[in-house]
Amino acid sequence: MTVTVFNKIIDVKNTVNEWRKNNKTIGLVPTMGALHNGHASLIKKAKETCDKVVVSVFVNPIQFGPNEDYNKYPRDLESDRRLCEEMGVDIIFAPTPTEMYGEGAKLSNTDITFVCPPYNLIDCLCGKSRPGHFDGVATVVLKLFNIVTPDYAFFGQKDAQQLFILKKMVKDLNLNLTIIPCPIVRESDGLALSSRNTYLSKEERERALTISKALNYVHTLYKKGITDSATLFDSAVSVLDKEIEPEYIEFRDYETFNKTDTVKENTLIAIAAKVGNTRLIDNIII
Amino acid sequence: MTVTVFNKIIDVKNTVNEWRKNNKTIGLVPTMGALHNGHASLIKKAKETCDKVVVSVFVNPIQFGPNEDYNKYPRDLESDRRLCEEMGVDIIFAPTPTEMYGEGAKLSNTDITFVCPPYNLIDCLCGKSRPGHFDGVATVVLKLFNIVTPDYAFFGQKDAQQLFILKKMVKDLNLNLTIIPCPIVRESDGLALSSRNTYLSKEERERALTISKALNYVHTLYKKGITDSATLFDSAVSVLDKEIEPEYIEFRDYETFNKTDTVKENTLIAIAAKVGNTRLIDNIII
Repeated sequence: MTVTVFNKIIDVKNTVNEWRKNNKTIGLVPTMGALHNGHASLIKKAKETCDKVVVSVFVNPIQFGPNEDYNKYPRDLESDRRLCEEMGVDIIFAPTPTEMYGEGAKLSNTDITFVCPPYNLIDCLCGKSRPGHFDGVATVVLKLFNIVTPDYAFFGQKDAQQLFILKKMVKDLNLNLTIIPCPIVRESDGLALSSRNTYLSKEERERALTISKALNYVHTLYKKGITDSATLFDSAVSVLDKEIEPEYIEFRDYETFNKTDTVKENTLIAIAAKVGNTRLIDNIII
Repeated sequence: MTVTVFNKIIDVKNTVNEWRKNNKTIGLVPTMGALHNGHASLIKKAKETCDKVVVSVFVNPIQFGPNEDYNKYPRDLESDRRLCEEMGVDIIFAPTPTEMYGEGAKLSNTDITFVCPPYNLIDCLCGKSRPGHFDGVATVVLKLFNIVTPDYAFFGQKDAQQLFILKKMVKDLNLNLTIIPCPIVRESDGLALSSRNTYLSKEERERALTISKALNYVHTLYKKGITDSATLFDSAVSVLDKEIEPEYIEFRDYETFNKTDTVKENTLIAIAAKVGNTRLIDNIII
């Protein structure tokens, strides 16, 4: 079976309508392409859960800030296509920005309808340094949901804040689907997989490793009975490479997304840091 | 056939799922209740178009400003129920605010996910004096769309800006439904029907009549060859009761929603004005 690559929304809508008529369950794996084993784990889960699987490949301009890496973001549709074909994906949806947002529209909130997640969830962690980012994410994901009409959509736990925001969107807007969170996939040495890892020099990659090491160390201390967030914060900082300036190290209740002074079950411990020019994120949930 | 009144989202979802399985087409008429002949015309159109018709009755708190008439807004579910039953409506969906927005959430953009229409469409006409209004409308309407999953949704042309914004939302967010605009219904003397007309004293009602008269006069002049917006603006003002201060009288291309200096086919001419304490709107499309 070859995977079908569609660029047009109408082609996807027509196909999923046929599937619906035949009572097929549909899984969606939204991606920005440059697929790695993390994405593969989402696709695998989708294949296990659903009759039909759609992978969207779209580097979404409205979730990038003006000084971010939209143009530089890695793109390799042919490689993505091969991976999807090997894994038995039914459709790759790879639209252009014009197909998604129309001709001539300014890609801003002056000209297009946005989905805006609650301010309390976006004015923190990655949202703090990336204003507008999660509006752009929520908007494109809702569009993809309406185009593909999935029963299940699969997202990585690596983007923990994104996942929380999208689950909140599903609840708040009464969407008819379930979001399935999938665990972070790591290299054998612990580095969380990310399409942005390709930006790292060999030396930067070494330094980047200290991010997951810091999280592991915190987890170890927690298991030894240390639960004070301030203490664990300092321990994490002590493990991070000295040339890495963390953007944040935060401890949040993953039920409420409120900050927590005491780590307990379901506490999210999240780090963002720049390694050279590359911004990386990682997290664990206790 | 009696109409079924549901207060719970899950009951509506279960019923429409059954309908979908049986390939029924579904029509939605979103209302804030206090149904009048304007709503009846929407319901009639929905009955002609769809196998099943849902009327939602919900005075949506998030589309009212702090100094607006949310508490005072007329509510009469029993009368609404009788009208719907007579007209053969299948379901009335009449949720509480808690059912729609959850327990304990602040009904603001700090705590809940909003749909935000493009700024260019909301920073004008009614949106100018009602900040947040159209965010609240778009959000509740998208929620209703996801709950009822209609093939067609019916809206009155009287809220011309709302209609434009919702059609834009359907396009921008790739929703799987069609919006059907329905003409303004008027009293025999020309007053546009509105649930807010019940606020008017007899004397205010007389004065309110000059709003539709002003629009008629402009239309008559246009048919005589006068197309200059500024001239037609002055003519409209000359007809309005002297005690009515118009909030706006605007001429906009109803394809682009841009202001237009020259009235032509598909020009929206819209008025908002306070008559006593009651804010009324009316419009014509050439």
